[in-house]
Amino acid sequence: MGGELMQLLYTENHTPQVEISIKLNKQLYSGQSEYQRIDVLESEEFGRILCLDGCLMLTEKDEFIYHEMIVHVPMAVQPSSKNILVIGGGDGGAVRELVRYNTVERIDLVEIDPLVVEVCKEYLQTTARGLEDVRVSIHYEDGLKYIRRFENYYDLIIVDSTNPYGPGEGLFTKEFYGNCFNALTGFGTIVNQHENAFYAEDAKSMQRMHKRIAEVFPISKVYQAHIPTYPSGHWLFGFASKRLHPVVDLDAESWNSIGLRTRYYNTTLHVGCFALPTYVDELLRKSR
Amino acid sequence: MGGELMQLLYTENHTPQVEISIKLNKQLYSGQSEYQRIDVLESEEFGRILCLDGCLMLTEKDEFIYHEMIVHVPMAVQPSSKNILVIGGGDGGAVRELVRYNTVERIDLVEIDPLVVEVCKEYLQTTARGLEDVRVSIHYEDGLKYIRRFENYYDLIIVDSTNPYGPGEGLFTKEFYGNCFNALTGFGTIVNQHENAFYAEDAKSMQRMHKRIAEVFPISKVYQAHIPTYPSGHWLFGFASKRLHPVVDLDAESWNSIGLRTRYYNTTLHVGCFALPTYVDELLRKSR
Repeated sequence: MGGELMQLLYTENHTPQVEISIKLNKQLYSGQSEYQRIDVLESEEFGRILCLDGCLMLTEKDEFIYHEMIVHVPMAVQPSSKNILVIGGGDGGAVRELVRYNTVERIDLVEIDPLVVEVCKEYLQTTARGLEDVRVSIHYEDGLKYIRRFENYYDLIIVDSTNPYGPGEGLFTKEFYGNCFNALTGFGTIVNQHENAFYAEDAKSMQRMHKRIAEVFPISKVYQAHIPTYPSGHWLFGFASKRLHPVVDLDAESWNSIGLRTRYYNTTLHVGCFALPTYVDELLRKSR
Repeated sequence: MGGELMQLLYTENHTPQVEISIKLNKQLYSGQSEYQRIDVLESEEFGRILCLDGCLMLTEKDEFIYHEMIVHVPMAVQPSSKNILVIGGGDGGAVRELVRYNTVERIDLVEIDPLVVEVCKEYLQTTARGLEDVRVSIHYEDGLKYIRRFENYYDLIIVDSTNPYGPGEGLFTKEFYGNCFNALTGFGTIVNQHENAFYAEDAKSMQRMHKRIAEVFPISKVYQAHIPTYPSGHWLFGFASKRLHPVVDLDAESWNSIGLRTRYYNTTLHVGCFALPTYVDELLRKSR
């Protein structure tokens, strides 16, 4: 780690007023793709860290929370999902959780940036190893364009996007949600990362997103997880479906019978994570 | 805020490897009592901030989460609680939530440090105003000694302590929990702040605490809340009782009929907050 006088520090602003700093051992990779800057950092506390355009996307220590929650929640509601689309998520973490289901037949991963996949395959084996599964096809394409070609095809769409600025912007439009609706089968469900409700600017994005999804899908709910390295640590996910209610239609017995070992998700927590704080409920109600 | 070249920053280490920094407008107060250093800071993002020995205790923006969760969870299980003891909590936040119940007859606040109360009364009216209620008696005393004098007296004990180092240390011993058991009535419940399970050192304190409480009380559960300014943002509380189960014995109808307006707590979330992530469940099981 070099001399005692030197300390590498990764600092990220969660708001203009608040920042988190993490001591680093070293910077493993830094590059610029057509779309964004990509960094892989190594820290003692969190293991390896992936940043896109300077924003922390995942750490080896807590990525299991995000990836388990974005995958197992919809899969436990609809364990029969066979054709699955993941948009974004070039790190492979969501796919890694999906390939654990023997019943899944096909996973299309649509990632706009080939360099993200390449870098994660080299530096983040813990998430990227799922990408090697034979059922996975990677499409280097804009998700917004990709989705237009499909009708009544996917059982589940997982939108594992960056935040609503930069290359991921199109994945937060009403047009996109409408196209997802068309691409889904009759019981189809879409799950997406939904920002946080605590910091004012993020809460506005979150409300805007919820309004747009709720205009397209008859069932539109929000659930939460504790993700320590994300702004506020209180992270939200959207669950929208043509027919399935995330709690009423939870098939806990089926899911538990599969015997997947998880570290955050369980079917009791599944029900609990949809019980939102009153202030979050109110923000969601006001957004409609 | 002075010239553009100057920026006051409050920085706290959440672990030796991770720190949070908050921009400040100014330091409103700094003093040293017999027990600890006390600071009140003013920030744009979080409003006023109370620190004891440099650790962030509360901010005006998110203290409602902590105080609602430490009070309304046990009160909704046992709405008939009349005699209540709060240990620590000299900021008055827990008492402020308790005095909203007309049925509460007596609240004893045992705070070791008179200067904490004095400073909060001057600089943190939002939490300290509860202390003015006629049902509240403040005792400046060590909670560990105070509790020894009581038998079968309190319906509810709330341990609103600092962390397990420094002046609050005695509030984490088996002797203390045993004395609390004796001081409680037949349906008595004790609730305490329970650290976090994410960072290794804190998780160890949390396990030790849980082991000690579980050795004394037949019912001993843990619940959680999202508190953005606390380490990891994933904060735990302990609920231990002679007879009452926090979920089975929840009296949601009674609590909702009181008509208290809350911003975080609600009776649906009450059930949800006891559904812990698998890794937290496992840490608790291993601690016993």
